Amino acid sequence: MDNLGLVFLSEVVGTAMLVLLGCGVVANVALAKNKGFGGGFLMVNIGWGLAVFAGVIVSYASGAHLNPAVTLGLVANGATEFGSGVPVNALSVLTYIGAQMIGAFLGAIFCWLAYKQHFDAEPEAANKLGVFSTGPAIRSYGWNLVTEIIGTFVLVFVIIGFTNGGTPAELGAIPVAFLVIAIGASLGGPTGYAINPARDLGPRIAHAILPIKGKGGSDWSYSWVPVVGPIIGGVLAGLAAGPLLPILV
Amino acid sequence: MDNLGLVFLSEVVGTAMLVLLGCGVVANVALAKNKGFGGGFLMVNIGWGLAVFAGVIVSYASGAHLNPAVTLGLVANGATEFGSGVPVNALSVLTYIGAQMIGAFLGAIFCWLAYKQHFDAEPEAANKLGVFSTGPAIRSYGWNLVTEIIGTFVLVFVIIGFTNGGTPAELGAIPVAFLVIAIGASLGGPTGYAINPARDLGPRIAHAILPIKGKGGSDWSYSWVPVVGPIIGGVLAGLAAGPLLPILV
Amino acid sequence: MDNLGLVFLSEVVGTAMLVLLGCGVVANVALAKNKGFGGGFLMVNIGWGLAVFAGVIVSYASGAHLNPAVTLGLVANGATEFGSGVPVNALSVLTYIGAQMIGAFLGAIFCWLAYKQHFDAEPEAANKLGVFSTGPAIRSYGWNLVTEIIGTFVLVFVIIGFTNGGTPAELGAIPVAFLVIAIGASLGGPTGYAINPARDLGPRIAHAILPIKGKGGSDWSYSWVPVVGPIIGGVLAGLAAGPLLPILV
Amino acid sequence: MDNLGLVFLSEVVGTAMLVLLGCGVVANVALAKNKGFGGGFLMVNIGWGLAVFAGVIVSYASGAHLNPAVTLGLVANGATEFGSGVPVNALSVLTYIGAQMIGAFLGAIFCWLAYKQHFDAEPEAANKLGVFSTGPAIRSYGWNLVTEIIGTFVLVFVIIGFTNGGTPAELGAIPVAFLVIAIGASLGGPTGYAINPARDLGPRIAHAILPIKGKGGSDWSYSWVPVVGPIIGGVLAGLAAGPLLPILV
Repeated sequence: MDNLGLVFLSEVVGTAMLVLLGCGVVANVALAKNKGFGGGFLMVNIGWGLAVFAGVIVSYASGAHLNPAVTLGLVANGATEFGSGVPVNALSVLTYIGAQMIGAFLGAIFCWLAYKQHFDAEPEAANKLGVFSTGPAIRSYGWNLVTEIIGTFVLVFVIIGFTNGGTPAELGAIPVAFLVIAIGASLGGPTGYAINPARDLGPRIAHAILPIKGKGGSDWSYSWVPVVGPIIGGVLAGLAAGPLLPILV
Repeated sequence: MDNLGLVFLSEVVGTAMLVLLGCGVVANVALAKNKGFGGGFLMVNIGWGLAVFAGVIVSYASGAHLNPAVTLGLVANGATEFGSGVPVNALSVLTYIGAQMIGAFLGAIFCWLAYKQHFDAEPEAANKLGVFSTGPAIRSYGWNLVTEIIGTFVLVFVIIGFTNGGTPAELGAIPVAFLVIAIGASLGGPTGYAINPARDLGPRIAHAILPIKGKGGSDWSYSWVPVVGPIIGGVLAGLAAGPLLPILV
Repeated sequence: MDNLGLVFLSEVVGTAMLVLLGCGVVANVALAKNKGFGGGFLMVNIGWGLAVFAGVIVSYASGAHLNPAVTLGLVANGATEFGSGVPVNALSVLTYIGAQMIGAFLGAIFCWLAYKQHFDAEPEAANKLGVFSTGPAIRSYGWNLVTEIIGTFVLVFVIIGFTNGGTPAELGAIPVAFLVIAIGASLGGPTGYAINPARDLGPRIAHAILPIKGKGGSDWSYSWVPVVGPIIGGVLAGLAAGPLLPILV
Repeated sequence: MDNLGLVFLSEVVGTAMLVLLGCGVVANVALAKNKGFGGGFLMVNIGWGLAVFAGVIVSYASGAHLNPAVTLGLVANGATEFGSGVPVNALSVLTYIGAQMIGAFLGAIFCWLAYKQHFDAEPEAANKLGVFSTGPAIRSYGWNLVTEIIGTFVLVFVIIGFTNGGTPAELGAIPVAFLVIAIGASLGGPTGYAINPARDLGPRIAHAILPIKGKGGSDWSYSWVPVVGPIIGGVLAGLAAGPLLPILV
């Protein structure tokens, strides 16, 4: 298999792992009759952080981007290769992002299977969608966008800064997990911290397609916010980290 | 002592440590009058993860499998030795699994002794069994099996993937703990995440044998699920990790 | 850029990151309608600890003081340079402290933007101030000062002790985070653990200036306690660590 | 200063740090009007674990025993020196234990000062004692002793096993913290996990002596349990770890 094929597989597997575990902790806390029902926001933070930990561990080959905002942030930062020997160009960017979307979609399906009975037993359609994708606490596209931009800026800025333009795999699985827990606890209140277009859109597509009992709509009117916000935040972080690299490394 | 004897002792000690602490945190949270009573699912997750941390630390000599699903996953992955210099064959596999069962049984007895008064004071028989073994939130053998398969797949896939066919000891005690916390938080809702046949069956046998005051049945009708599910999940992970190893290391 | 310019930028960026995430977790837990609303004190502890983790990561160039009590503690300890190649003198001390104040002020503004709608929706003015700055559980300037002195003493003593007169960057981002979680959980009850004059005063100035809807006063009568207490604690720790260094390293 | 003087100072400082932070988290959760009031058992577990983390960091010079059960466990294990160059003999053992007692006593005083107003405001005398020393959930000296023996056995067995007869400092501050969190979560329910005679007796003496407003008795009838239990557990662990060392390292 050539390098781009490896990258594709690696990002599919890593993002599927991330979404399976990440959506899983929301399912555990939010869906009726689960043993973790009502487990609280800190449990969701820790669960999501460790989901990224597991995702990073199984996709070192590609640098464990697992997030289009990371990939595009590296491009904006002027990277010439992606932490995997693969050069930065239109094809490799599309390979990363495509693999992330497919992985997120697959991870959401496995999450649904693991929690199948609890989706069936849950009376509230909104709780079902909440397992798959984020939604705002107070709907206001402009301010929701601001929150997603700031959260993703922190994620990508710390990764690029600490690794001198490198990848999550270079920062390491445990520090990345701590960073994601930090962002969730600190900036996750208003929008549920998508901070990753693939993590939000892939599962939303799965929600729309899967035969989930008693599901409602997939809230497509909000769906662009957790895509556009993280892309803006990641690109801004990549741009900002460039001139600041002397202080960061 | 020969190598197989060392492996036996190491897996007995490690699995006993794992089950003593793992069942202990459930006792603390679930049994009446404990200081940690009602401590919540996140506390159980963290307690179980750190129980595995302590178990791994004291059984490095055998590779700290502590789980038949790990041992059989390594076999399925095509391992030729078990991270302890011991070659893979029927005798060594049986030694690992037998030691894990005995260790789990012994750990459950020590847990009962540490919480003896609280077992006596607890009015609900179901809470007593819940300290020893897992049970489903919604009983449905097929879907419960699916959940256990997915959870164990994640456990064994990450271990084998990160270590290139290696053991929990090679992944390290802290990363293994984080992985177990992740699986518990994210996939533990429907079945209480046995993800380890010895962890579930050993204590269930102890529950059946020990003179626990006011105990009910040991729920043998469910007992095969947390044995068969983890075995299937571990073997599938071992098989899947093989062709994927180029992306994992 | 010369070294002092690097130090300035590094401390601004690091302290802004620290305050954005640290004030953010309080906003999430305390302001109405947030997803983390009512998440509890442990979540605030963990959030603040990981805020410092992220702050340290992005300001290694300056040694990641991020806190005038650390800078002054190092001076009291007899440091000749600040972990950044910059010699200790009046100009460098002022550069550190000035940058920390500016960074804290900026971080508070970004926090307000990320939680703009929730500040608007929150009915209680005291909760809004609580996001920015600390306040005492039982107001008594003398005893509040004692608590802040003890908490900051622990912070600076452990940092200087472990690193033989070195900086938070030398202790490392993860141990510093654990230390801050420890101090918050253990000594944060009476005053909310400012333990950092910049972390408290910078955001208080931002609170006074920003057009926050329905805000009340900035509690200037208390504002000197989380400035003076941490300075005394940090200086005492620097003085105490000197003769004790033989046991500490 | 000679080595024994260094050891003395190191154990005083480390145990004082441990008890200040450890008793502090109980004060925060248990005493009226604290910001962490009602924070839960997991917060206490994490706080105590990180208290030990901070204590270990500042007493590397002596091996960071911080606990007579560790010191005596090492003796039982056949240690010839204490991880500090100091040979094992009656004088060095007494130096370690005496320093631990004095440090624990001092740490409790600082904790009382940090929470002075909250001790004054707290109506329940039992809650005040609970900050200083442990007490049983169900009083039964025999079974309480069993629980303390098992908990301390785990602590000392893992330390000695992992380090081949070495000290907490050799295991490292972060793994020791995780181990203490594990024991607290898993075995802390019945007795509040003293697992350290100095940690319990030193603060109990402080409680008896300090002019704490509205304090009740110091429960001397129970006081021998958290002294004798941990000593038995530590010695048994030292003895057991000897023949098992081939599997542990």
